Amino acid sequence: MDLIDGNKIATDIIAELKADIAALKGRKPCLALVRVGEDPASVSYVKKKEKTAAEIGLESRVILPPVTITQDELFLLIDKLNADPTVDGILVQSPLPKHINEVAVFHRVSARKDVDGFNTVNLGKVAQEDETGFVACTPAGIMELLARSGVDLAGKHVVVLGRSLIVGKPVALLALQKRAGANGTVTICHSGTANLPLLTRQADVLIAAIGRPDFVKADMVKPGAVVIDVGINRIADPSKKTGYRLTGDVDFAAVSPLCSKITPVPGGVGPMTVAMLMKNTLKAYRLSNC
Amino acid sequence: MDLIDGNKIATDIIAELKADIAALKGRKPCLALVRVGEDPASVSYVKKKEKTAAEIGLESRVILPPVTITQDELFLLIDKLNADPTVDGILVQSPLPKHINEVAVFHRVSARKDVDGFNTVNLGKVAQEDETGFVACTPAGIMELLARSGVDLAGKHVVVLGRSLIVGKPVALLALQKRAGANGTVTICHSGTANLPLLTRQADVLIAAIGRPDFVKADMVKPGAVVIDVGINRIADPSKKTGYRLTGDVDFAAVSPLCSKITPVPGGVGPMTVAMLMKNTLKAYRLSNC
Repeated sequence: MDLIDGNKIATDIIAELKADIAALKGRKPCLALVRVGEDPASVSYVKKKEKTAAEIGLESRVILPPVTITQDELFLLIDKLNADPTVDGILVQSPLPKHINEVAVFHRVSARKDVDGFNTVNLGKVAQEDETGFVACTPAGIMELLARSGVDLAGKHVVVLGRSLIVGKPVALLALQKRAGANGTVTICHSGTANLPLLTRQADVLIAAIGRPDFVKADMVKPGAVVIDVGINRIADPSKKTGYRLTGDVDFAAVSPLCSKITPVPGGVGPMTVAMLMKNTLKAYRLSNC
Repeated sequence: MDLIDGNKIATDIIAELKADIAALKGRKPCLALVRVGEDPASVSYVKKKEKTAAEIGLESRVILPPVTITQDELFLLIDKLNADPTVDGILVQSPLPKHINEVAVFHRVSARKDVDGFNTVNLGKVAQEDETGFVACTPAGIMELLARSGVDLAGKHVVVLGRSLIVGKPVALLALQKRAGANGTVTICHSGTANLPLLTRQADVLIAAIGRPDFVKADMVKPGAVVIDVGINRIADPSKKTGYRLTGDVDFAAVSPLCSKITPVPGGVGPMTVAMLMKNTLKAYRLSNC
């Protein structure tokens, strides 16, 4: 069994992006990071993004509206960033306070600056195999992990567990695309699927993205399969300083001996998302400057 | 085996739409039909759409630019229709002359008037389960055929043969939606699928949309399956006046005895598309008047 090392692959991508950005003439790409309020997870996510941006020479502009901001005020702020020619990408950090409609805010971001890939147009472009759009960071990261681990999906049966808008559906559409590395046959399973193990056992590549800790057991996996674990679940663990440990959607101890390749949690898909955000920002810059 | 009668179901929908439109006060919904040149198939398709529109009390406006129209001139024509508040839906009849980029023309139609459902935004909305968009007429017609034949996809395995933008992908996304009648587990197969019969034989509902005459044989179908045949293929047949006969993607004679329900060709999915176009036009009218 080979471990797919997301930290290593993300580090490689970051280094490539750093070289690409160093070679740019004139203004550097700029990512606007909007964080509303002081949610501790958001604070840490935005810090990480800021740090990675600085590392690769990408400008970041952190905007910190108070938790009391109204939806209309937030729209206005996004409209200004949409119109600002010195801003290439805009990320509004989730979660937003409850009085704000998160989906409406995400959709307010111009499709051309939507480096999170949540805009309707960008999801439509994934379906249409139009490469001028932005792919959401997690599915984009999964495809990179597969490609850089030598997994070609052509002729393979890819089973996706979960149909969320930010992972399951876009990764299914990507795996299905008629291009090198993809061209897979794709099955999408979910909470309403009957006889789930019968389907997951047919997977040459199994992508688990349902947010249920240790859900995928050994009897659900075909020997030799490639397993991508997208889950990041917190399990109470008094033996840890933090009081919890992280686990994926896959029962790693039971499943990993069966696999040809598997991603660990943490250290698999997780580290890829920030790298893909940076890659999308560079793409946005290039699209607006060419 | 029950035959799913597309002519009967389409007639029912047309009658419902006629009653809905009769009940509207003021201006009637208006569909602009743009036909470039005199392609015989296009002439007949547009006539059929005009006739159905008249039958249900929907206004149609047929616009017939010459085959020599440039792409920019066609864009201008579409822009005018996009801006015209008395036009609710716009359909540009395919095929267009070869000097015109068909996809670019389809995408020029405003998403709010895109009753063909080809716009990136409308495909994105199908993926996002946003019901304010327009679903392309063929996949929308397939879902109506299933619903009106008492086929509930919940807990079922739906296998889609074909990944086209106008049938395979949208119908897969529709079958997957978390709503009454849908909520299926979905597999999408295509020309690159390995061991296709193994997958199609697992289908509770098999949707064939690959454009290969009589491709689906008896050994590819599970006894009791529901089979939807989207193919419309012309086969040379000197015994016919027209010189050809129509056949689907399914070998009907061999497969139909196995099925619980099956659509014939012609008379299955085909008649539904014009009905769904009319339904989309009424929806566009309501969205712009509410």
